[in-house]
Amino acid sequence: MALVVQKYGGSSVADASCIKRVAQRIVATKKAGNDVVVIVSAMGDTTDELLDLAEQVSPLPPGRELDMLLTSGERISMALLAMAIANLGHEARSFTGSQAGVITDSTHGKARIIDVTPGRIQEAIDQGHIAIVAGFQGVSQDTKDITTLGRGGSDTTAVALAAALNADVCEIYTDVDGIFTADPRIVSAARKIPRISYDEMMEMAACGAKILHLRCVEYARRFDLPIHVRSSFSTKEGTWVVSDPYTEGTEMEQPIISGVAHDRSEAKITVVGVPDKVGEAASIFKTLADAEINIDMIVQNVSAAATGRTDISFTLPTADSQTALTSLKKIQPQIGFESLLFDDQIGKVSLIGAGMRSHPGVTATFFAALADSGVNIEMISTSEIRISVIVEQDGVDAAVAAAHRAFDLDADQVEAVVYGGSGR
Amino acid sequence: MALVVQKYGGSSVADASCIKRVAQRIVATKKAGNDVVVIVSAMGDTTDELLDLAEQVSPLPPGRELDMLLTSGERISMALLAMAIANLGHEARSFTGSQAGVITDSTHGKARIIDVTPGRIQEAIDQGHIAIVAGFQGVSQDTKDITTLGRGGSDTTAVALAAALNADVCEIYTDVDGIFTADPRIVSAARKIPRISYDEMMEMAACGAKILHLRCVEYARRFDLPIHVRSSFSTKEGTWVVSDPYTEGTEMEQPIISGVAHDRSEAKITVVGVPDKVGEAASIFKTLADAEINIDMIVQNVSAAATGRTDISFTLPTADSQTALTSLKKIQPQIGFESLLFDDQIGKVSLIGAGMRSHPGVTATFFAALADSGVNIEMISTSEIRISVIVEQDGVDAAVAAAHRAFDLDADQVEAVVYGGSGR
Repeated sequence: MALVVQKYGGSSVADASCIKRVAQRIVATKKAGNDVVVIVSAMGDTTDELLDLAEQVSPLPPGRELDMLLTSGERISMALLAMAIANLGHEARSFTGSQAGVITDSTHGKARIIDVTPGRIQEAIDQGHIAIVAGFQGVSQDTKDITTLGRGGSDTTAVALAAALNADVCEIYTDVDGIFTADPRIVSAARKIPRISYDEMMEMAACGAKILHLRCVEYARRFDLPIHVRSSFSTKEGTWVVSDPYTEGTEMEQPIISGVAHDRSEAKITVVGVPDKVGEAASIFKTLADAEINIDMIVQNVSAAATGRTDISFTLPTADSQTALTSLKKIQPQIGFESLLFDDQIGKVSLIGAGMRSHPGVTATFFAALADSGVNIEMISTSEIRISVIVEQDGVDAAVAAAHRAFDLDADQVEAVVYGGSGR
Repeated sequence: MALVVQKYGGSSVADASCIKRVAQRIVATKKAGNDVVVIVSAMGDTTDELLDLAEQVSPLPPGRELDMLLTSGERISMALLAMAIANLGHEARSFTGSQAGVITDSTHGKARIIDVTPGRIQEAIDQGHIAIVAGFQGVSQDTKDITTLGRGGSDTTAVALAAALNADVCEIYTDVDGIFTADPRIVSAARKIPRISYDEMMEMAACGAKILHLRCVEYARRFDLPIHVRSSFSTKEGTWVVSDPYTEGTEMEQPIISGVAHDRSEAKITVVGVPDKVGEAASIFKTLADAEINIDMIVQNVSAAATGRTDISFTLPTADSQTALTSLKKIQPQIGFESLLFDDQIGKVSLIGAGMRSHPGVTATFFAALADSGVNIEMISTSEIRISVIVEQDGVDAAVAAAHRAFDLDADQVEAVVYGGSGR
């Protein structure tokens, strides 16, 4: 008997009939002889509707109250799901994040999980019940106030609970068949990846692949918990995210490149004419850190000997641009840089693959493919298993398609035709 | 400085603009130098919408899950109300029933409050915050599951918290100006009652007056907590419910009759031909009690000497009729009664007044008034401060109007014209 943790997102429980369908899948898993714990998000548009209401009463609602409001969303979906399961003749018990022992810090809106003490969930399992747990929410260790985990919160709840319960697998249900070698909306020949490592998945997530959030993969890696990303609309195998995907005698060789990710949500700021003195760059990035801005890529030009000045470019979430620019303007007199340039018409394209470690020439092939498709590279950043470039936003699609083709990721013609139905 | 507990019902917080208006009233009370604790119901139709959803997934949802679902309603309204208050520059903190220390038994859907431990609320008050508490909900002492209190639950939460916090007054806000001498929709000359005793108010509530629920008045009487029932649409004084309304030098003499209440929600069952032996009536009512049916009035005819059999009639909530009839059918062979009669076309009309104790002839005047208006009496029940009669449902309006007139409760012409604006 295995312990299976399943997570269903908002689109999987969008209305009563969706909830009933999910209930049947859960009961089928239970009937197959497994213990089942389910993490559920708020129904479809509930969160947006609640945010709308909040906006109507206050332009700047306090974080504590916003969390109190939003957590009603999962309360509704989890109770309905428990009812639907009961209606199929199985015992189900719903639990809030607090009841499930999801203990967080008190950063409302983006709390971090500090501890998971799932005593009540374990008790429900021991009694043979199916436990339904609200995703995305917890309770603050210090203030005992209700918190929400922010983006990717339900996935993180699922993985954290699965780890605390020592589950055999955490299944993340979504509306696609798994993780693909590229966004199928851009590359129609993109294929489903059957198995991928935590490290590659984290690079994919950090580089814009939206299926799994970075936090949840980090958490799974720490506890070596297998994640199975799959569709709630079919029973096909999806993508397994595991520590070493290639050791278990899979029939294929390890591919060089696992996939191509892209991200259009970043902007670029260039600080022009920074005096090339020790500590100037540090002051700039300390200022940005104090404003709680996450910087992604950073490039510093070689200092021009004539002027003794240099340019520093970096990328950041477009949503944080205004805050960043304002913070930097404030320290302009102190640092003495010349000006600020801002560009939000950029995109990031990333190649991810553990295989590139042992294959020289990956960078050359990647850049040649981009050049052939007429895309200019503005910034470059690399890790052991990733190469990212910043290009102009209009060139993203062409860059993704070119890279996908250059590394032989395109599916065979036949497979491509049935894409979405078969995968690989 | 006083501690004021205010309760706002669903119609007072039906939408964002209602919530903002309530927030202003709360802030005004705070600014007047009071500590304020607010109990709030779910917004307008939220509860019905949630019940609708539940029905879509399950015809018979488990009580535990239904409570989990419904309690999301107050969670939404209380968070929004706290935001609206914060937007007016005052600190507000919302608390679930569980967080507010409302401890109940584990009867889902109609839990009873066992204890109130409002440590977090007191702490919020001490910090100068306005505390917003979800009405209608608590947490089970034994199972730690979320419970709802059933009908009148939010009023009961308000009174229970007010008592536990040793508040000076519990203000119940509603959409009418207070408690009236009769339903103004039936008797246009009905007047607002300025002060009424707990005992009279309990009889009024038990007899169909819908403004305050019996449980909440019982609770207030036990702790001698003044209730002020008033309109959320005006700042006029409403009705004070207190232990002795006539000692504080009010200008008027104690009236004989405080008001006329009516109730159309009951039905009558007659058990025909019950063998007149010791214990037969007991078996009947034990059966009904086991089925958790609340019996109201009971009448047993004098046994007919010739047959040794008698008829027993009783009234009960119409909603429980089917259950009651089924239970009784089951014990028919054992008891040996002849048949069951059922009538849901009845109404109850009640005269309530502490003054009737010292005024003989009240019953005669009442019955004469009913006779004059052509209404036939089917059953009678009395207490020290109440006389109730069962009449046919079509006669209820005429009976209420006749009684109201017979006991000089009608307002003067002038007052009647401005009814709804002035009251008394």
